Amino acid sequence: MLARTRPSKTCLSRCLSALTTTVTTPQKVSYITLNNPAKRNALSLDMLNSIISDIESVSEQARCIVLRSTGTVFSSGHDLKEVAAASQQVHYTIFNRCNDLMLMIANSSAPVIASVDGFATAAGCQLVAACHMAVCSHGSKFATPGVNIGLFCSTPGVQLGRAVNRKLAMDMLLTGEPISSEAALRGGLVSRVYSSEELEAETARIASVIATKSNTVLKLGIKNFNSQIKKSLVDAAEQSSQVMVRNLGLEDGKEGLSAFLEKRHPTWQQDK
Amino acid sequence: MLARTRPSKTCLSRCLSALTTTVTTPQKVSYITLNNPAKRNALSLDMLNSIISDIESVSEQARCIVLRSTGTVFSSGHDLKEVAAASQQVHYTIFNRCNDLMLMIANSSAPVIASVDGFATAAGCQLVAACHMAVCSHGSKFATPGVNIGLFCSTPGVQLGRAVNRKLAMDMLLTGEPISSEAALRGGLVSRVYSSEELEAETARIASVIATKSNTVLKLGIKNFNSQIKKSLVDAAEQSSQVMVRNLGLEDGKEGLSAFLEKRHPTWQQDK
Amino acid sequence: MLARTRPSKTCLSRCLSALTTTVTTPQKVSYITLNNPAKRNALSLDMLNSIISDIESVSEQARCIVLRSTGTVFSSGHDLKEVAAASQQVHYTIFNRCNDLMLMIANSSAPVIASVDGFATAAGCQLVAACHMAVCSHGSKFATPGVNIGLFCSTPGVQLGRAVNRKLAMDMLLTGEPISSEAALRGGLVSRVYSSEELEAETARIASVIATKSNTVLKLGIKNFNSQIKKSLVDAAEQSSQVMVRNLGLEDGKEGLSAFLEKRHPTWQQDK
Repeated sequence: MLARTRPSKTCLSRCLSALTTTVTTPQKVSYITLNNPAKRNALSLDMLNSIISDIESVSEQARCIVLRSTGTVFSSGHDLKEVAAASQQVHYTIFNRCNDLMLMIANSSAPVIASVDGFATAAGCQLVAACHMAVCSHGSKFATPGVNIGLFCSTPGVQLGRAVNRKLAMDMLLTGEPISSEAALRGGLVSRVYSSEELEAETARIASVIATKSNTVLKLGIKNFNSQIKKSLVDAAEQSSQVMVRNLGLEDGKEGLSAFLEKRHPTWQQDK
Repeated sequence: MLARTRPSKTCLSRCLSALTTTVTTPQKVSYITLNNPAKRNALSLDMLNSIISDIESVSEQARCIVLRSTGTVFSSGHDLKEVAAASQQVHYTIFNRCNDLMLMIANSSAPVIASVDGFATAAGCQLVAACHMAVCSHGSKFATPGVNIGLFCSTPGVQLGRAVNRKLAMDMLLTGEPISSEAALRGGLVSRVYSSEELEAETARIASVIATKSNTVLKLGIKNFNSQIKKSLVDAAEQSSQVMVRNLGLEDGKEGLSAFLEKRHPTWQQDK
Repeated sequence: MLARTRPSKTCLSRCLSALTTTVTTPQKVSYITLNNPAKRNALSLDMLNSIISDIESVSEQARCIVLRSTGTVFSSGHDLKEVAAASQQVHYTIFNRCNDLMLMIANSSAPVIASVDGFATAAGCQLVAACHMAVCSHGSKFATPGVNIGLFCSTPGVQLGRAVNRKLAMDMLLTGEPISSEAALRGGLVSRVYSSEELEAETARIASVIATKSNTVLKLGIKNFNSQIKKSLVDAAEQSSQVMVRNLGLEDGKEGLSAFLEKRHPTWQQDK
């Protein structure tokens, strides 16, 4: 099903290119795979740059982006060896670059799905929380254990605190203990849980479902959702009504409605 | 138990009167029933006007309002035939009128409960999310599938995004796939799930429980809740303390407290 | 395991000292026990003052604070006899003092865990919702039943509405009906549920886990979490990045990182 497997073209160096791989299906689902299992897919500065570079390289064309990992750890968060050796200036660079990635995902016009099969901890858990959607296998676990080593997961808490209820976020941040996939589902960190065997196929199915939608419409919808959710109910409702009217005026809006009434499949602009 | 069944008195026309029926029990629970199963209880402009008119007609007297439907679809959302045939001007009218309904529910002094037995999709799901409370049967499903036809559920997302956790809202909005009653309960779209057989009786029981409260006190409480939840913790706490003191000064506040201490049932002003 | 059991030293009077007891373990976990089961651990003004006084007395030294109760009722909320007999001026005093307690918990530099084995209602439920973490036994129940006696739980709604999803909060506030521990877990009011037999040991274990962390780091992390969660995503991310860098510059941040890389247990400043 996957059309081609290659190291990311846009990687800055041969070194970087090994950290992630990008595969884009004919349906334009781009799989970005964290591929440094020996280092537990740690978010070193190189890894952050590699993911950012990959997203940049596919974001124009992709209809859906999937973040996944090889090995048993989705990502263990920042590379602590790198952090320990770095100057304060580099610390700023690392955390700012990590924020760049999180905000790039939030603002991506192609929906980004985290598909987790294993452990996602610290900034790795932050990455899951930052995605538009997240699914995982039953055995997956999530933790923000920075507090165990005297480094409170303050940046992961930004995304975690907006994804799950307050008591669960504080439990994770204060105790550092992992939660199960069931607790992650209950708390809202993921919206679907599958067996480890089903995860890949189900992730592909969901991504495929999203890839059949009009990208123009998805883009409009995601942008408005992120904008209206911060506003008062009255302002959010008014703004979103205007977006609905604008949506209906789009070529894909007209086509979708016609196709529905004519009981046929729509043909989006992107497919012409 | 239901005192009378009639088409809504305040309907604008004979045509409208068929779309919804309103029944008010002696206990002043008003059941507004969407009654156009042949059109899947679509929220056409006429249907929106009929519900709005019904709420207006009962809101002064009702102690609790229940929204429910006949047929297997609670509501399928906007009437897409109507939308397709309409001018941009009418599109504005449709979405604004829909917003009027949602805000009317949010600001209703009588609590509004959605009782869902079947499918609630798009603006139908929005309607459920907009109610103060929502209960459903086990087989009920909820979806925001507008994205499937090139019309992102941007207005439903306003209420959905405030009712459930972010990951679930995005899953529903991006994939268009339905969620089960169990997922709706877990995510916070409904607070109780019953068997299809029990739903009517349990809805009646809950509405009856609410109808035995002081309407004056409910009104004060709902208004303060909606106001304080937007504020900072300190401001919310201060404002709500003042409301507690004001509540204690109400006739019904004094009566309720006395009745409690005297181990008798309170008699509210509304029942005198 | 508990080092000493004594009435709180800082209590204002002999009368107050009976309402709560404070025990601090050698590990500096402070257990504040509401100890007026005959009055269902009602939050009378004396009880509020006693808890506040206890928190004040331990907050400098404690690494974790546990709130728990004797008897089958964690707390039934305000003392309604006291409320009924009080002037409006005293009503203000009661609700303001209750707010003081809630804000004191929110701002406590030592994490506060509610450990509930039984009923927590009205301001008792508010107290649970106000804590950083909450755990309970399977048989525990939570309710905001003020509406039953004509006194809407407006102040409890401040904390409840920030802890659980909107539909559950409104269900509890409007119907006054209790929810089970399972519903509390699902809705986010507690993050862990244990059997009644396990609750004490598990609470002690969690508190002990938190007590082994660096208090300086916990303090920094909690303060930033509370601050960032109110801000826009961009501002929250930027502020939290700066806190991460500051955290790395702390003695305990350096020690934790070194210990991790050297595969040894860290020794925090507080333990030297």
